[in-house]
Amino acid sequence: MTRDPAELLSEASGGSRAALARLITYVESGGPTQREVVARAYRAAPPYVVGLTGPPGAGKSTLTDQLIAIALERGSLGTTALGEVGVLCVDPSSPFTGGAILGDRVRMQDHATDDRVYIRSLATRGHLGGLSLAVPDAVRVLGAVGFPVVFIETVGVGQMEVDIASAADTTVVVTNPGWGDAMQANKAGLLEVADIFVINKADRAGLAETRRDLEQMLDLGVAREPRPPIVETVASTGSGTAELWDAIGAHHDHLLGDGVLAHRRRQARADLDRVLEVTVRARVGALAGMAAYDEQVARLAAGETDPYQAAETLLAES
Amino acid sequence: MTRDPAELLSEASGGSRAALARLITYVESGGPTQREVVARAYRAAPPYVVGLTGPPGAGKSTLTDQLIAIALERGSLGTTALGEVGVLCVDPSSPFTGGAILGDRVRMQDHATDDRVYIRSLATRGHLGGLSLAVPDAVRVLGAVGFPVVFIETVGVGQMEVDIASAADTTVVVTNPGWGDAMQANKAGLLEVADIFVINKADRAGLAETRRDLEQMLDLGVAREPRPPIVETVASTGSGTAELWDAIGAHHDHLLGDGVLAHRRRQARADLDRVLEVTVRARVGALAGMAAYDEQVARLAAGETDPYQAAETLLAES
Repeated sequence: MTRDPAELLSEASGGSRAALARLITYVESGGPTQREVVARAYRAAPPYVVGLTGPPGAGKSTLTDQLIAIALERGSLGTTALGEVGVLCVDPSSPFTGGAILGDRVRMQDHATDDRVYIRSLATRGHLGGLSLAVPDAVRVLGAVGFPVVFIETVGVGQMEVDIASAADTTVVVTNPGWGDAMQANKAGLLEVADIFVINKADRAGLAETRRDLEQMLDLGVAREPRPPIVETVASTGSGTAELWDAIGAHHDHLLGDGVLAHRRRQARADLDRVLEVTVRARVGALAGMAAYDEQVARLAAGETDPYQAAETLLAES
Repeated sequence: MTRDPAELLSEASGGSRAALARLITYVESGGPTQREVVARAYRAAPPYVVGLTGPPGAGKSTLTDQLIAIALERGSLGTTALGEVGVLCVDPSSPFTGGAILGDRVRMQDHATDDRVYIRSLATRGHLGGLSLAVPDAVRVLGAVGFPVVFIETVGVGQMEVDIASAADTTVVVTNPGWGDAMQANKAGLLEVADIFVINKADRAGLAETRRDLEQMLDLGVAREPRPPIVETVASTGSGTAELWDAIGAHHDHLLGDGVLAHRRRQARADLDRVLEVTVRARVGALAGMAAYDEQVARLAAGETDPYQAAETLLAES
């Protein structure tokens, strides 16, 4: 039975985790209820979003656990006061789950019984835009029910992760010593998303080389502004995690330096561009089912047109 | 001075490398001349395209050199006879050139004086679709002037490289022993594009582990059909390169197994989808310059609408 989103939002704001879980399930599922939920969720102030991304095994979960603990202890991120902390876990590349994941494991032992923490694995169960829209929507649901800060943890550094990370205000890319080859392979993608680099497991061999590789990448490539700091951590012992928290806080304060309104405008632009792209792409996808599309493909295969001409003809007709 | 594309195509077909170079420059540059060139180039039969991709230092250039030598010696790729061989070199991630590259280096000593080989580095100098369209366009120019087989060499395995590789009929992903971390990080992307895996520098330590990692990836992930073979090479000595050539030939014959027309239809569909996507993205980009877009952003930032509603309003107006 579909429940009324307004009622659920009110219950979730009052502390009901069951109501909150149901709202996020609606968002994952797409359809009319998703639209009703987001129509309300986007009316509330957005939370501040910290994204953590990196390959499996880099230590993101342990790091996120540490950050949650620090968040609860400090009670603020930069100038933003925080009571509750939300965590969304996403694994777009998992061939088993089609999107769900990890998350609800070891860490749950740490924080699951703490009322101030809400941890949720996200899957796409039908959302038109897949995870790249389901994640920002779920973030706004958390914001609407009172979470001032939300962490997003994604596995991997491919295009999907870049899209998801673009929903974060501060994006932390987690690497390990000896990760030189992988960084080379992903240079452009990493530079595109990273506000902060972490070298986790910094007690392992290869730290100096990895730092040098990262510095070099930042020297040569077009990184985000301001230049992403490189923080060394050993998440298993907690070493360096306070420095990481401070780096996130500093980036938060930098982003909000020109005012909350300017920041909201940037977020709004990113939100709108994401949805526009998905919507337009869906319309193009719908073209592929049309007879006119098949006709253009046949003409192309026969050398009777070129793809630019074919695309123009199709779009003019659609 | 812009020269007439029809004349240039005729001269290039007659063997003029200067005319060919000029045509490809037009394709890189975008604009009305590009459209005229491709309008003619897509009327001719497409060449068979072999893509090689992998991180810097994996040994792609040496491998490509070896494949060119074998191609010239054998005189055919599977069932396709070949006289001339074209090579396009692309480095989308290079921060120095914005797209140009390597290529015209060591290897030139091997083949530059051979009339049957044409090697060209590609840059995007204004093409609307960037390299993901400039590369397929340049491929068709080579096809139109008589090259039956074209190699594309790209550096890296990010989304851009995936897009470029999708223009290839057979995509070879080049790895090295000890490349386990990088493969993990790019699993989804690698599986998406690879028709053949190469472990180059197979005389180095870590070969067995890398093969095992690759086999495991293929066992668990959704790879292309048929299951990509894993070929071990030492490009510097030529060891294994004949086997690689045979694997490429086998994939070529597999692809053409259901007939040339079916293959052309697949290529045509890919070409059309690529151009549609770029065209649509450009339209979305154009929206961002409109007053109506700014108005929706302001309303979003103020919590007066949601991005789905805002996108619908904008697209209905545009």
